[in-house]
Amino acid sequence: MRLIRFAYQGRSHYGVLDDDVVFPLTGPPVGDFALLKYCFSLSEVQLLAPCEPSKIIALGLNYRDHAAEMRMALPTEPLIFLKPSTAVIGPSTPIVYPPQSCRVDYEAELGVVIGRPVSKVSEAKAKNYILGYTCVNDVTARDLQKKDGQFTRSKSFDTFCPLGPWIETDIADPDNLVVEAILNGERRQHSTTQNLVFGVAALISFISHIMTLLPGDVIATGTPSGVGPMQPGDHIEIRVEGVGSLHNHVTR
Amino acid sequence: MRLIRFAYQGRSHYGVLDDDVVFPLTGPPVGDFALLKYCFSLSEVQLLAPCEPSKIIALGLNYRDHAAEMRMALPTEPLIFLKPSTAVIGPSTPIVYPPQSCRVDYEAELGVVIGRPVSKVSEAKAKNYILGYTCVNDVTARDLQKKDGQFTRSKSFDTFCPLGPWIETDIADPDNLVVEAILNGERRQHSTTQNLVFGVAALISFISHIMTLLPGDVIATGTPSGVGPMQPGDHIEIRVEGVGSLHNHVTR
Repeated sequence: MRLIRFAYQGRSHYGVLDDDVVFPLTGPPVGDFALLKYCFSLSEVQLLAPCEPSKIIALGLNYRDHAAEMRMALPTEPLIFLKPSTAVIGPSTPIVYPPQSCRVDYEAELGVVIGRPVSKVSEAKAKNYILGYTCVNDVTARDLQKKDGQFTRSKSFDTFCPLGPWIETDIADPDNLVVEAILNGERRQHSTTQNLVFGVAALISFISHIMTLLPGDVIATGTPSGVGPMQPGDHIEIRVEGVGSLHNHVTR
Repeated sequence: MRLIRFAYQGRSHYGVLDDDVVFPLTGPPVGDFALLKYCFSLSEVQLLAPCEPSKIIALGLNYRDHAAEMRMALPTEPLIFLKPSTAVIGPSTPIVYPPQSCRVDYEAELGVVIGRPVSKVSEAKAKNYILGYTCVNDVTARDLQKKDGQFTRSKSFDTFCPLGPWIETDIADPDNLVVEAILNGERRQHSTTQNLVFGVAALISFISHIMTLLPGDVIATGTPSGVGPMQPGDHIEIRVEGVGSLHNHVTR
């Protein structure tokens, strides 16, 4: 099932997308929700980010190939950082290149969307709390990341967290998906979540032992090798096998 | 004026505290809100964190005396990091010492609470977007902070962001307030916001040029020298001149 958020006549709604037909939901896809008795064509609506996370927890150096590319040792524990909810945009909304940076990179990632509140869950039970999966572009001002040491500023600009195009709920094995970034039609990142240092269940368990995860929260599981810069005017696509393709342009 | 949030018979409300009398508000203290036509005695209610931030933006090394204590050079720009909303607790709620850490520190800070959405504001106009001020304890697992390099894990545990006891709206000069931490009745931190490397207006302007600030968001302006460990059973008080005193116990 593909869960979406969309705008129609200036209001936002949650919904289910079935081929090109949009069925609105009575509320967010958590707890009790139902389909309303009318529908739209996909062409009538504008897709928004598919969830409204209270927080985005992202991973540093969580792909074996990316750690090698950065000449960093593999972490012995997950290395987490946060992106603020104000950075979230949906498909087709532009990524805005901030004047403070001269180097803004794409980072293709598998996003895990949490479905129910969860604290201190075991790895064995972690997947019970997943609503589904989405594509994440963990946009990063690489020059500011290097300057600050702390990742926060470089990854927190408004528009630096494209999510979407939807939440795919039917993924049998999230630790075996191809993840790609395609810049202006040219493939720049190409790996698989088999290369994750810490897989999806391990990440949920680790993070939930630090902070309570809430419905709609997103775990951005890290990026593989091949990160690189975008320029104003560029088109960037993040593609996750079995999930979908997230398209955004870059503007000044 | 002192703005509070409180629990009464299992429900939470916003309110105004006048001496020991609590006047509930019709909603959060932003935009149009009004007093309801009844009141409570302070002893009848439980104070909660005075706001519900979508994000807490905190500052590293923003006091001249703390940077000297840590033997770090003064930053040339503010160094920001984020604490998640799930870390927020109110006065009198315990700080829970996590099993992952052997060294959990208090950090006394002046908190600035945002009143209206703001993006890319000048330093001159920044103070128009302040709702008021509160006390923050930026609780930090110092061992995990050193281990990770990134600050996120060490500062994001549930209960690691005590806020309160209220939002004081009437502060003439936030850059001239005494900030103190008192551990088990003994003063451990004692400085003034005159020692801030970047003052309140400069911080709001800097952060708002990165990310949109929303009503209720909190800027934790950094901690002075004298940080140190707490143990289960300890009582910690954060005191900010003209604002108030925030009390919490530490439990296992």
